[in-house]
Amino acid sequence: MSLIVQKYGGSSVADAEGIRRVAKRIVDTKLAGHDVVVTVSAMGDTTDELVDLAHEITQQPDPREFDLLVTSGERISMSLLAMAIKALGHEARSYTGSQAGMKTDGTHGDARIVEVTPDRIRAAVEAGAIAIVAGFQGINVDTQDITTLGRGGSDTTAVAMAAALGAEKCEIYTDVDGIFSADPRVVPKAHKINAISSEEVLELAGSGAKVLHIRAVEYARRQGVTLIVRSSFSDNPGTIVYHPDRAEEFPLEEATIAGVAHDLSQAKITVVGVPDVPGSAAALFGIVAAEGANIDMIVQNAQTQSDGVTDISFTLPKASADAVARAIENAKDELGYEQLRLDDQIGKVSLIGAGMRSNIGVSSTLFEALRDAGINIDMISTSEIRISIVTRAEVVAEAARAIHAAFGLDGESEAVVYAGTGR
Amino acid sequence: MSLIVQKYGGSSVADAEGIRRVAKRIVDTKLAGHDVVVTVSAMGDTTDELVDLAHEITQQPDPREFDLLVTSGERISMSLLAMAIKALGHEARSYTGSQAGMKTDGTHGDARIVEVTPDRIRAAVEAGAIAIVAGFQGINVDTQDITTLGRGGSDTTAVAMAAALGAEKCEIYTDVDGIFSADPRVVPKAHKINAISSEEVLELAGSGAKVLHIRAVEYARRQGVTLIVRSSFSDNPGTIVYHPDRAEEFPLEEATIAGVAHDLSQAKITVVGVPDVPGSAAALFGIVAAEGANIDMIVQNAQTQSDGVTDISFTLPKASADAVARAIENAKDELGYEQLRLDDQIGKVSLIGAGMRSNIGVSSTLFEALRDAGINIDMISTSEIRISIVTRAEVVAEAARAIHAAFGLDGESEAVVYAGTGR
Repeated sequence: MSLIVQKYGGSSVADAEGIRRVAKRIVDTKLAGHDVVVTVSAMGDTTDELVDLAHEITQQPDPREFDLLVTSGERISMSLLAMAIKALGHEARSYTGSQAGMKTDGTHGDARIVEVTPDRIRAAVEAGAIAIVAGFQGINVDTQDITTLGRGGSDTTAVAMAAALGAEKCEIYTDVDGIFSADPRVVPKAHKINAISSEEVLELAGSGAKVLHIRAVEYARRQGVTLIVRSSFSDNPGTIVYHPDRAEEFPLEEATIAGVAHDLSQAKITVVGVPDVPGSAAALFGIVAAEGANIDMIVQNAQTQSDGVTDISFTLPKASADAVARAIENAKDELGYEQLRLDDQIGKVSLIGAGMRSNIGVSSTLFEALRDAGINIDMISTSEIRISIVTRAEVVAEAARAIHAAFGLDGESEAVVYAGTGR
Repeated sequence: MSLIVQKYGGSSVADAEGIRRVAKRIVDTKLAGHDVVVTVSAMGDTTDELVDLAHEITQQPDPREFDLLVTSGERISMSLLAMAIKALGHEARSYTGSQAGMKTDGTHGDARIVEVTPDRIRAAVEAGAIAIVAGFQGINVDTQDITTLGRGGSDTTAVAMAAALGAEKCEIYTDVDGIFSADPRVVPKAHKINAISSEEVLELAGSGAKVLHIRAVEYARRQGVTLIVRSSFSDNPGTIVYHPDRAEEFPLEEATIAGVAHDLSQAKITVVGVPDVPGSAAALFGIVAAEGANIDMIVQNAQTQSDGVTDISFTLPKASADAVARAIENAKDELGYEQLRLDDQIGKVSLIGAGMRSNIGVSSTLFEALRDAGINIDMISTSEIRISIVTRAEVVAEAARAIHAAFGLDGESEAVVYAGTGR
């Protein structure tokens, strides 16, 4: 009998009615002839409420205790879901991360899975029961302390369970119909993608699209797990996320381009008049790294100025921008630059598609579309399957729509909402 | 270094402020030179809210899942308490029942402790940390499933930890100053008892006084654990509950009588005209037992009626009364009685004191006090250290006050509140 792993996010189990609806869907999957293992997130705002409680006690909660605290949320949702399934007349048993064999390292708040030994889950499934596993949590393999997997942790739990149990597929249930070709709030004609490769999803997520969490997609790609992103509120088939090696099995409706992502969370720092000598960039980014900032794009200005200096620009999360700017200013004498500029009114638009590799016209189409829309490009960076441009924040939406249209991505009708998964 | 186990009930940790206050008290105990192990209940109404959630899902929640659900409450309070202690600069580590080695049988909702192996607790204490143990919960020694210890479970956890760790004493913190000689809401002149034997506490609790839970007191008596009941809101010394064998160590301010308890939770069934032949009572109480009802007092009327029949009266919880009455009526032909009367307007008043054993005037003083107050006695039952009478519900308070005064128990001033512990 084929095994399906299903993950339900917090919005799907926000209240008793949601839990009963999810229970019904799980039972339907069982009745269709599948073994079912379910991973569930905490109900609605439970985790936020627990975090608030901790911050009422102390601004810097102990990491070990914080993990113990926030994992209560999944314990509540998983036991209620098991009760709801049993009330429908089917056997169900819920398990904490520890009981399910989710063994991690000791990084509280962002633990890595080191081994999955789902003996009790397998036994429950073999006994005919639906097994429910608390998402987001594991147990430190050395100390037996409770750990959490960080953002996207419940998605990761589901993928890890699917890999360890050899599941046919892993369904990620959320409150939208799947992955879209762009954010419908910005590009109203965005369409739902039927099938997309995991490498494209990774580029989408890395470019600011709120789809699946990068870590879960990475895990799925490494372990060869097929993901389905779909809504727990409808029967629509959702989006298949397949391993790039299996691309030929899927009808490629989007031969070249999967979608357009945008990102307004970044700021840009430009360091003007850096001495154009070996080691300048190393010194600058050594200081940036010491601040723990996550650099996205870096551009060193091509037109070296006449007096042997150059300009270096880079983007980074707005939250890190002030601290990094201060650190660079403090090292002004050491770095020998002329001027520092911080700009937090920028935005990034990215075009993603595996077909880009074999299609040489993509970048010129993109630049023409932006030119026709009168949009100025500030920075450009590319990967094998992605082109990103930085422009002014206020024209990002217009840029995304222009690019979406230029690549023939516009759907027949307007989409309703955009993918946003729980943790 | 001496080890103290402290238990804090839900009212003591109802909010962030309460948790910080309790943390301070724990740290003070540590700074006074003691090792400290803490058991904590769920915050305020958390458990009730979880129970309500379960009942929104299904009226008959699966017992295994229900235990997983409700144990979340202690997980939340224990981790917050550990954070609060760490925020005060002291090392603290919290542990679930399972991590603390609370091994139980498999009776979900009312599990019995079969073994306590607090290896991690001992290691934490030896490392200088304050160890916090989730109250109320354990782990099924056969299946590794989470279990709960039922009513009074957190008190029982504290006592079991104290016994397993060889603690000097076990302090039960609640929202009142200790155990009182009567319920101050009924007997305003009730006084706080400084020292009382565990057998007297058992009789008080069994007679309707909301003091400690019988099971925790039984456990403490069996294991020789000294209990202190005191308030987490004041520095008053509380009430010492000692093993009866150690009575000589404690100043017996109440030479004869410890206190007066009252109980309005019972109903009375009288079966009139039962054939006065061997086996009548066995047949009647066989039917009662089949309903699962917990019988308290039984009186068979002394004045056998002339026609070879007798009356049997017994008291039982009001909640069971209708079902038991119906069962007896359904067996009317078999039992051959004349009439059944159900009375739910009764009340019980009990006088408890270990000194009763050696003091022959107690019952006459009690009956005189009731006579002088004009209170009619309906039933009487006695144990070695207790006399209980049943009377009309509306005169129970007056009866309790009259008895309290007659035995010289009235304090100088009026007490404020009465002992009521969390679970």
